[in-house]
Amino acid sequence: MPIVRFSVSVDADLAAKFDRKIKADGCPTRSKAVADLMRAVLVQTEWQRGSEVVGAIVLVYDHHKRELLQRLTDVQHDCHEAIISTQHIHLDHHNCLEIVAVRGRPPEIQNLFKRLKGVKGLKHCTLAAGTTGAHLP
Amino acid sequence: MPIVRFSVSVDADLAAKFDRKIKADGCPTRSKAVADLMRAVLVQTEWQRGSEVVGAIVLVYDHHKRELLQRLTDVQHDCHEAIISTQHIHLDHHNCLEIVAVRGRPPEIQNLFKRLKGVKGLKHCTLAAGTTGAHLP
Amino acid sequence: MPIVRFSVSVDADLAAKFDRKIKADGCPTRSKAVADLMRAVLVQTEWQRGSEVVGAIVLVYDHHKRELLQRLTDVQHDCHEAIISTQHIHLDHHNCLEIVAVRGRPPEIQNLFKRLKGVKGLKHCTLAAGTTGAHLP
Amino acid sequence: MPIVRFSVSVDADLAAKFDRKIKADGCPTRSKAVADLMRAVLVQTEWQRGSEVVGAIVLVYDHHKRELLQRLTDVQHDCHEAIISTQHIHLDHHNCLEIVAVRGRPPEIQNLFKRLKGVKGLKHCTLAAGTTGAHLP
Repeated sequence: MPIVRFSVSVDADLAAKFDRKIKADGCPTRSKAVADLMRAVLVQTEWQRGSEVVGAIVLVYDHHKRELLQRLTDVQHDCHEAIISTQHIHLDHHNCLEIVAVRGRPPEIQNLFKRLKGVKGLKHCTLAAGTTGAHLP
Repeated sequence: MPIVRFSVSVDADLAAKFDRKIKADGCPTRSKAVADLMRAVLVQTEWQRGSEVVGAIVLVYDHHKRELLQRLTDVQHDCHEAIISTQHIHLDHHNCLEIVAVRGRPPEIQNLFKRLKGVKGLKHCTLAAGTTGAHLP
Repeated sequence: MPIVRFSVSVDADLAAKFDRKIKADGCPTRSKAVADLMRAVLVQTEWQRGSEVVGAIVLVYDHHKRELLQRLTDVQHDCHEAIISTQHIHLDHHNCLEIVAVRGRPPEIQNLFKRLKGVKGLKHCTLAAGTTGAHLP
Repeated sequence: MPIVRFSVSVDADLAAKFDRKIKADGCPTRSKAVADLMRAVLVQTEWQRGSEVVGAIVLVYDHHKRELLQRLTDVQHDCHEAIISTQHIHLDHHNCLEIVAVRGRPPEIQNLFKRLKGVKGLKHCTLAAGTTGAHLP
């Protein structure tokens, strides 16, 4: 992919402080740090505009709760077109971590998320927004 | 697990509006909606206090980028104690979605997250905070 | 305003942990803590639905920067219908804190916010979303 | 203040998409957009590190509620060292918007925020984090 080199004018002190911060974070170059910030702005825009996106829905629950597993699986089947695959981890004797990799338009993913979140007995349900990368260098 | 029933006094109009909102979201009962809000407050507290937590790190990258895959794998091996398992999805000819299920103290997970985020060539890197559920009914 | 009393059934351990958390935060009663969480959900909804809302735009800038003060004032006059009043604080010899109290439909406020944020020389510009309280008990 | 000019190498497509996004947002130059992102990262760091910061606490309440006004004023007096000034707006016959401009170390401001948020009868209470600008060009 072609690279462009553009220059940015900022206050000297801002550049120095930013360099210290990204060094502390282990970021190798200023170009990478700036490009990461630029990309994060664009991923937000993809979700706002309704582009195809990906994400991860993180669920935590006690699989002993009656019918919980069945309901979560039913919702996932109803919305199977928005789901790529599901990773299931047995955290302890009771608790399960389930990470659902999702792909689709934001409203489809929001709908799946709402339906999962609505299932009784869940301890935790969050959605991490990501990007397909197709339109993002 | 024992259930308690406690009563809450709120303005009638607040209760009515909240009921409409959770109905629109597909939430089955007011008790569930309130308990979900209470749990979300406590999950935040677990991350602040440094309890053992779980989460998901979502990565998107082009696997054709030189050495990128190698570096991501190296970092994951260095921090293998904080990683439960990794789900890898081939989004298209170029792009990969990798979802790393993590478990540990917040500083360990933050360290892994910083090191992954610092790898050159990534398109996206976010961390979804979760809970082990062990201390959360 | 009429008060309703409704009861909530949650796990005993969740109730106990939540009580400890709100006590640590200095919240006087469980009813208040729950009602605050319910209200926060509804304020988000007001912004999403486009109801009339209020908020505060927080600006920090060096008033010695050429034309900065003039431009900020020009933008505020262009959008005066969305502005209630502006509080100006001289932080030190250089820096000003300006807090613009705003009221209107979310798109009008977002437009004012974008225009202020676009002014060259600003050090900081954030928007705190609030509510008119008119539809929120 | 001295300006530095540094160059950033990013994918051509990323630069093009970012340019379209900031143009749509009304941001005049790429340098400004990048510097704004850099500053936002540093303001977060100021709050994490406990530097002196400023902010705005936004309150909405019905002034007819018994003793509410008195209690809010009492808390503000107790914490007067963290408060610069308070802007009070009569939103309608019932509702007041109060914007408290604050300055101090993050724990002092968090303490004031918690105490205000704990007052019974408030409809809304949020904190917008800002910067003194003293260490931020």
